[in-house]
Amino acid sequence: MPSNSDRKLAEIARQDDHISYKKIGHIPKRGIWHWFFGRPLASADAGHQTIGKAVGLAVFASDALSSTAYATQEILVILALAGMGALHLSVPLSFVIVALLLVVTISYEQIIHAYPSGGGAYVVARENLGEWPALVAAAALLMDYVLTVAVSTSSGVAQLVSAVPALLPFQIEIALVMVALITLVNLRGVRESGAVFSVLAYAFILLLLGTLAVGFMKYFTGSLPALVEPPEMELLGEASPITVFLVLRAFANGTAALTGIESIATGITAFKQPRSRNAGITLIWMAGILSTLFIGITFLSHEIGAVPSEFETVISQLVRTVFGGRDLLYYLAVGATTAILFMAANTAFAGFPRLGAMVAGDGFLPRQLSYRGSRLVYSRGVVLLALVASLLIVVFRARVSGLIPLYAIGVFLSFTLSQTGMARRWWKVSKIKPGKNKKGTRALQTEGEVLAFDRHWRTKMAVNSFGAVCTGVVMLVFVITKFQEGAWLVLLLLPVLMACFQAVHHHYKDLASRLTLEGFKVPAPIRHQKVIMPISGVHRGTLSALRYAQSLSKDVTVLHVAVDAEAGEKVLLKWQKWAPDVNLVVLGSPYRLLLEPILRYVRNAAEHRKPNEIITVVVPEFLPRVWWHSWLHTRAAQLLRMRLLFTDGVVVVEVPYVVD
Amino acid sequence: MPSNSDRKLAEIARQDDHISYKKIGHIPKRGIWHWFFGRPLASADAGHQTIGKAVGLAVFASDALSSTAYATQEILVILALAGMGALHLSVPLSFVIVALLLVVTISYEQIIHAYPSGGGAYVVARENLGEWPALVAAAALLMDYVLTVAVSTSSGVAQLVSAVPALLPFQIEIALVMVALITLVNLRGVRESGAVFSVLAYAFILLLLGTLAVGFMKYFTGSLPALVEPPEMELLGEASPITVFLVLRAFANGTAALTGIESIATGITAFKQPRSRNAGITLIWMAGILSTLFIGITFLSHEIGAVPSEFETVISQLVRTVFGGRDLLYYLAVGATTAILFMAANTAFAGFPRLGAMVAGDGFLPRQLSYRGSRLVYSRGVVLLALVASLLIVVFRARVSGLIPLYAIGVFLSFTLSQTGMARRWWKVSKIKPGKNKKGTRALQTEGEVLAFDRHWRTKMAVNSFGAVCTGVVMLVFVITKFQEGAWLVLLLLPVLMACFQAVHHHYKDLASRLTLEGFKVPAPIRHQKVIMPISGVHRGTLSALRYAQSLSKDVTVLHVAVDAEAGEKVLLKWQKWAPDVNLVVLGSPYRLLLEPILRYVRNAAEHRKPNEIITVVVPEFLPRVWWHSWLHTRAAQLLRMRLLFTDGVVVVEVPYVVD
Repeated sequence: MPSNSDRKLAEIARQDDHISYKKIGHIPKRGIWHWFFGRPLASADAGHQTIGKAVGLAVFASDALSSTAYATQEILVILALAGMGALHLSVPLSFVIVALLLVVTISYEQIIHAYPSGGGAYVVARENLGEWPALVAAAALLMDYVLTVAVSTSSGVAQLVSAVPALLPFQIEIALVMVALITLVNLRGVRESGAVFSVLAYAFILLLLGTLAVGFMKYFTGSLPALVEPPEMELLGEASPITVFLVLRAFANGTAALTGIESIATGITAFKQPRSRNAGITLIWMAGILSTLFIGITFLSHEIGAVPSEFETVISQLVRTVFGGRDLLYYLAVGATTAILFMAANTAFAGFPRLGAMVAGDGFLPRQLSYRGSRLVYSRGVVLLALVASLLIVVFRARVSGLIPLYAIGVFLSFTLSQTGMARRWWKVSKIKPGKNKKGTRALQTEGEVLAFDRHWRTKMAVNSFGAVCTGVVMLVFVITKFQEGAWLVLLLLPVLMACFQAVHHHYKDLASRLTLEGFKVPAPIRHQKVIMPISGVHRGTLSALRYAQSLSKDVTVLHVAVDAEAGEKVLLKWQKWAPDVNLVVLGSPYRLLLEPILRYVRNAAEHRKPNEIITVVVPEFLPRVWWHSWLHTRAAQLLRMRLLFTDGVVVVEVPYVVD
Repeated sequence: MPSNSDRKLAEIARQDDHISYKKIGHIPKRGIWHWFFGRPLASADAGHQTIGKAVGLAVFASDALSSTAYATQEILVILALAGMGALHLSVPLSFVIVALLLVVTISYEQIIHAYPSGGGAYVVARENLGEWPALVAAAALLMDYVLTVAVSTSSGVAQLVSAVPALLPFQIEIALVMVALITLVNLRGVRESGAVFSVLAYAFILLLLGTLAVGFMKYFTGSLPALVEPPEMELLGEASPITVFLVLRAFANGTAALTGIESIATGITAFKQPRSRNAGITLIWMAGILSTLFIGITFLSHEIGAVPSEFETVISQLVRTVFGGRDLLYYLAVGATTAILFMAANTAFAGFPRLGAMVAGDGFLPRQLSYRGSRLVYSRGVVLLALVASLLIVVFRARVSGLIPLYAIGVFLSFTLSQTGMARRWWKVSKIKPGKNKKGTRALQTEGEVLAFDRHWRTKMAVNSFGAVCTGVVMLVFVITKFQEGAWLVLLLLPVLMACFQAVHHHYKDLASRLTLEGFKVPAPIRHQKVIMPISGVHRGTLSALRYAQSLSKDVTVLHVAVDAEAGEKVLLKWQKWAPDVNLVVLGSPYRLLLEPILRYVRNAAEHRKPNEIITVVVPEFLPRVWWHSWLHTRAAQLLRMRLLFTDGVVVVEVPYVVD
């Protein structure tokens, strides 16, 4: 806990009389800021900023559950290419997908217990497979978080539009506004968003389960009506016969239902203690509800003869058919669906910055991503995600079917990696000799290892290996079936991201090695300060700057560039009057160059400086109080600074003369 | 001459052993730059950068002469509103305008001799009428220079399009490209542009006079044909009967022919010695040619029945009718007309920056406008003019008839002011007692005064007064007849510009008064340097910064903000090892604020500083060699600098640690 080690700092300071320790409380910002983003939270509060099972389900499960809102439709949109006759295949496909869900869930159960401190694919891969696989996982997940936001928001808007067709022309605008709102909520911090959203999440679960219940009742009593006024069907390409390839494409689209499973394992630290247990139970609940909804929706949608459409979502068609029209319940159910989809986007806003911070912490992304804002949120990550997602929404005009081909590849890639990592881990565990488990490879020192040892590693390894194979195969199916439609883009971006990671990492490592104090001996102190001060004229400003210059050293040389000789003469005479005993060098500049002569003079002085001598260039600068006044003055001082920054042995000081 | 007073500087330096004088030669820039803008010219060359009568006529007269290319058409476009029957009025109107031209020319003859050092309306008004009238003249002229560029370029393109109708759709683009080219030429300096253009100017004069000669020959021999295939007529509004108002409007449009007369008087310094004489003769030649062309064109255009049109200029109609078709001579004549119009724009590029520099020199415009670039040109003025003119061209879609209503008001306003000024001047001259003319008001000390005295001031005063009245009346006619069409804009901008002038002037005067050394006594030297150095970590960079800090003062305090307490601990321990005897203050920041604690600490220190103590904040800063590396570091140093700039008694020094 920070607070403890703050005490520690104070302790050390107390012992050393050269060191003192002060605690700076919160410094108030403008009220509007707090009203917007909430009052600052102390680092010490970080621990309390966690959530229980109930809220956890709302915050993290929403991603997975919400995918039931489009998974079915995305299966149908592919099958539709083979005509209405092919749509019935959606039902068996949904069963296959749920089976896959089962496998993944079990594997993640194990991860959650093995990595109570947050076991996303990144961590698992890093611990067990090494740097490169870990980075692949990270890149894949980061991309997928972005897509989650884009897909969920777009689908949410699609639901909204189904209920209120009048909004159809504004889909993109609405989507962007929603992303902006979610961003704002997240800049305030996770607990608030949890509180805000729990209600909606449960509303969705109950209303959808209710719809299904009513639907099945009518189905068994034979009173389930067929869809009236079916909307215009969306066709992604020219018709084709039912081929294996087509079915696989439909399957690949459907597996979008599995996205979001990993979010609990990644966000585990947000749970109350006992973390693993709470997270694990939440995961099982989530999987259960997800399967029920997905199969139920797919089955009934087929029964009523729902069609994939850009104008009305399958959910909307289903609900209004079950309830026999657009009544209050319809609006509630579709409304809740819309809500949970936006919450799914919100999940990504929790996951992306957290993962980003983790990767940044390991030095593969800019450090800034690992700084937490005044609300304990990784603000920069949140904003970054919002920007990229918004871009996607604009590019794909908020159309789910357009985004889906890019989606879920990352998820399954990371699934595969984490499963493989776990399998490898159990294999290592098997090598542990009881009692000796404090020595050995990195993986063996993790907190999870101790828990791990006293269980049956064989079964677990089997489960994870099986999971790895399944998800691996599915991923291949993706790459093959979705390649043309957009998967290529993801496969292209992956290596690009990897390269960025490496470049960033290289820079930090390189810098550290150059700045290290290993074998560094403190150089002799600077013996001599040579001060050079360029002036444009002689007035109070320059004289006060001179006063400062003289406080630095006895050796002060003042430069004046005489662009206009008449003016130069004035300066010279004034100088003789006001500072007769200070050295003045007048540089005649027949070509009216102002900076170059000074630069040349300083650089020359720098080259011929004595050992242990440093040259300080004092630049008197006028600071306008009124913004447009800066137009009335040349920014010579800044330019000089820029140009001299890299000159060895030269330090530039701007001495402002504020006029008021 | 600068070179002399450079010698003077060296002289003074020799006598004072605290002062030394160095001459910095030309510092070479990249080759491409010189290829584009020419090699730098030394200030000493300024004198040689002058021109003779012949070139002078080409450079300065082009503005006035070129106006014959549209003046006639702009008269017709108004008269046309009263039907074809009214067009014959253009002939008498042209005679009235030429009479006016005569008056103005004579007045300017006197100005040229009275102000051999450049007597634009601004100077004359400043010398004789005071600040405000001078500024009015300046504002009026600056606006008119911009309009000259816009109108001439547009008309030039119109000629081009008449000859090559295929270019019709690209009028605006062509106009903008031309402005860009002229700008480039002018950034190279006046002499080159003079050389480039002389040929074309004389080609125009000869070809047009030739056309008229042939035209009149055919007219007197009765063989002058009527216009065949007249172009579609341009109508600016609904038809109206011949009213005095209409005729006055036509007259106002026609006086556009007088624009550019003043350019010689303004640009007089560009002439070879004897300036006044050369300039004077050039002016008379110009007036002569102008009158001939204008009356000739107007008369013959009427005889052949030319009509104002957007698709073919009157000149083009005249020339092809005279030469009986689009033969080689036609293309040569129209081509030369196009050329001289672009040269007219070029004249403004000489006048605008020169006037701008003059006004800036008096402190009514940003000083930068009075700095001459490496080619002795007031580069900033040139660029400014180009930008504003381009804007106008775009706004008015390069249509001459659209721009004309805004045009020439400024010219006549400045005419009136300079004439009045001259009249006032002669009146003052009349007060001079021979032999005593070295004392008296400012006006009496001008170079011109001596010449002035031994002539007949009464006649001159009469002439100028008459000129003032005429031009004054014409200006009123403008304001009344053109108000709706756009003159209001000019009348609106005039006061706005005046206000800007005053604001700028106030700032400079105010600043000067604050910085003046009148009654300033040098404050006691700074006794004590307190150095504060914030660090983010302990490494070679910070230690070398510390080395610098210690060279400034014994009193060095190092700050570390412990945002992350664990990291803070590391810093603390490292510090104890590497700089045990330097004071370190650790600021615990529970709200993860980085800058604020430092700012608070420094400001507090500044408030409680001793008299004659100054606080220097040394900020170690990492300087990335690779541009994108800067994204990987927080720019804390810069931010700190910005925030502390205005803090009293605090100076910020960035000590860069360049890594390579």
